[in-house]
Formats: sequence, structure tokens, C-alpha cells
Amino acid sequence: MEIEVLEGVFDANEIIARENRALLDENGTFMVNLMASPGAGKTSFIMRTLEGVKGSLKSAVIEGDIAGKVDSEKIAATGVAAIQINTGGSCHLEAKQVNHALIRLDLEGVDLVIVENVGNLVCPAEFKLGEDLKVMILSVAEGHDKPLKYPLMFSESDVLIVNKIDLIPHTDFDMEALEDTVLKMNSRIVIFKMSCRTGEGVDAWISWLSKRVKSA
Amino acid sequence: MEIEVLEGVFDANEIIARENRALLDENGTFMVNLMASPGAGKTSFIMRTLEGVKGSLKSAVIEGDIAGKVDSEKIAATGVAAIQINTGGSCHLEAKQVNHALIRLDLEGVDLVIVENVGNLVCPAEFKLGEDLKVMILSVAEGHDKPLKYPLMFSESDVLIVNKIDLIPHTDFDMEALEDTVLKMNSRIVIFKMSCRTGEGVDAWISWLSKRVKSA
Repeated sequence: MEIEVLEGVFDANEIIARENRALLDENGTFMVNLMASPGAGKTSFIMRTLEGVKGSLKSAVIEGDIAGKVDSEKIAATGVAAIQINTGGSCHLEAKQVNHALIRLDLEGVDLVIVENVGNLVCPAEFKLGEDLKVMILSVAEGHDKPLKYPLMFSESDVLIVNKIDLIPHTDFDMEALEDTVLKMNSRIVIFKMSCRTGEGVDAWISWLSKRVKSA
Repeated sequence: MEIEVLEGVFDANEIIARENRALLDENGTFMVNLMASPGAGKTSFIMRTLEGVKGSLKSAVIEGDIAGKVDSEKIAATGVAAIQINTGGSCHLEAKQVNHALIRLDLEGVDLVIVENVGNLVCPAEFKLGEDLKVMILSVAEGHDKPLKYPLMFSESDVLIVNKIDLIPHTDFDMEALEDTVLKMNSRIVIFKMSCRTGEGVDAWISWLSKRVKSA
């Protein structure tokens, strides 16, 4: 009877997300679920993060893409363990796919796993993976009006990375308007502004993340 | 028996897409299904297109968003008929939603309907709406490596708009690499390069589209 109640409350994805959570806890591993539109800079952000925590945290990456393995090859070239998931057309990662990847990664001694979700500002927000932190990236080039159009992603995320701030002078991007809108929707969200291309603003994120991982 | 065969071959969406097609044909209306990532510039592109065909084509717009009506209000302010569809969380438009909007629009005398799909480089590519033309936008800020990651959108589209070319000097965007990759995946795709912000390159698209609408 208890199982029936559980199945009524938690869907299949959520059950596996809880298994992932248990697996991560057993190994003392912190997991970030990284979500953004295509081209917002997820892979560059991961590269900057790996570089920033190098020497202090042991990291691994799970790359979710519809097709291809460009990103995992890029990560693997830095010496960090990277596993590619190809969703074969599906627009988001599910807990089960991440579970397979977590099992393939040897989590013992791994402090931080970053999961790069499929580039999509909509569907990934609906699927828990068992993560500690939902991090989303919005690129300056996408415009400051995105929160109202894609509300679930902004309200579900713990951290908002505003990326490509080096492009601000060449766009009509209004940072204040963005922050106002986002904080009204999600008052607990933490916002970092950076350019993964130039490196500006990356340090504050690295320092905040390192503290979160170490205190988890 | 025939109905069963039809249902086997065409899914429910495709049946309604065909109804949309018939409705458009009855009225001599050309329909564009416009798809892109969030923030690639769909609404600015529509504004530029409406401005360009003003006086020669009677236009209307169907705005698909998860939530909000910012875009349809922007369009309506120009005097062009605009209908807002809110998908309530869903990441793409389906033929049925467009059918409701087409019925609400008075299509008589309307030459061109532009449908702005939900900002998403994945799911919208899977749903036919009954359109004449699938047009996708890729913003320079998204990067030239997107076709391999989101192959269905690039291979399904008839037209690729490369937008925000004014940002090229501030990015690592490689136009030649993009064109090579896209044309290998989809040799019939027509590519236009423009900046909807500055207006550069818009004319070539307007002239091409006008010819297509008039000869349809």
C-alpha cells in the first residue's frame, strides 16, 4: 500500500532522481544540473568552472546532447572524466540517463559532477536529475525579456549565470530590468554576471561554488 | 477501413496540419512557421519582415509563447492583426492551436501569416503546422557549431536566417564553417545573413519572400 502511495506522488523520473541522489550522497559527490538555450555558453562555462576548481576539487562531466560528441571530447582533452549522453532526438535529460552515466563514472573521490543538459530553455526544467543545484545560463544576446516567456526555468533555478557580458555594449540588454523581473519570480535565486570568453566575473562564481561543494 | 489506414500513416497533428493547409489554400494565404532558440531575434525579424512587405502584402501574425503576450502586443501596435497563443508550459506549437488562431483571424484577403513558434531549437521541428515554409533563425551569438547538435531543426528548415551579424566582430563566429555544415545536412536550405537590429541584409530576404508569396 505504501508503494502505491509513493507511485501516486512521485513519477518514474522522480524515483530515479532519488536513486541518483542516494548514489551521490554515498560518495560525497555534489551535482550541478546546467541548463540553457542553445549557444548560451554552457560548454565554455563548464571549461571555466573546471579550470577554476582544478587542484581543489576533483570533477567529472556528463554531457547531454541530442547528437554528437564535440563537447565531451573538448572536456576530455582537459583530462577531466567526461561521459556523453546522446538523447537521440529528445529535448531534455531524464534521471535514468544520468543514472547510467553516474554508474559508468567512478564516483569515488569525485567532489563535483556537472551535467550539461540539452540546449533548451523549456523542457529540462521539468525533469529532476537528483542534483544539488540547478544552474541556468542566460546569454546577454538572448535579451533581458526572457524570464516572462520561459518562467519555469527561471523560477526552478537556484543560480542564474548571465553570460557574455562583454557583448552588453553592442546590444540593448538591460541588466537592471532582467534582475528585477527574475527576482520577482524567484527571490532565492543567486545571480552571477560573467563573460566565459574573457573570463570576467568567473572568480566570484568559482569561489561561491567551491564553498557550496565543500559544505555539502 | 480507409480511415484506419489514414490514422496509421498520419498522426493526429498531421491531420490537422492538412486542414490548416486546406484553409490557407482556400484563402490564397501563405504561411511561414518561424522557429529559433529563445532570444535569437524572432520578434525583431517579424517586425522587420512586416515593415518590408507593408504596402505589397497584407499580413497577420500568430504568436506562440509559453506565457505572456508581450510579442503580440508589440505586433498589434504596428496595426497588423496578431493573435497570441499561450501554450501553458508546452515547448512547441501544434497544428490544432494554429487552427484555432487561423479561424479567429479573418484570412480573406490575407496574403501572409507568420507563426512565431515557441523559442526552442528542438521540439518545434517535429510538428507540422500546415505551413508553406519552415524558417529558422540562428543568432551569431549562439555559435556556428549548432547544426551538429540540433540536426533536425537544420535539416527540416527551408530557410536559415543567420541573425545578429553585427555581433560577428565581437565573437568567434565562423560563417564559412556554419554554411559548410548546414549545406552538408540540407543542400536545399536557403541562407540569408542579416542584422534585425541594424537592418543590414533584410532587403534580400524581403525580396525573396515576396516572390515566393506571390508565386504560391
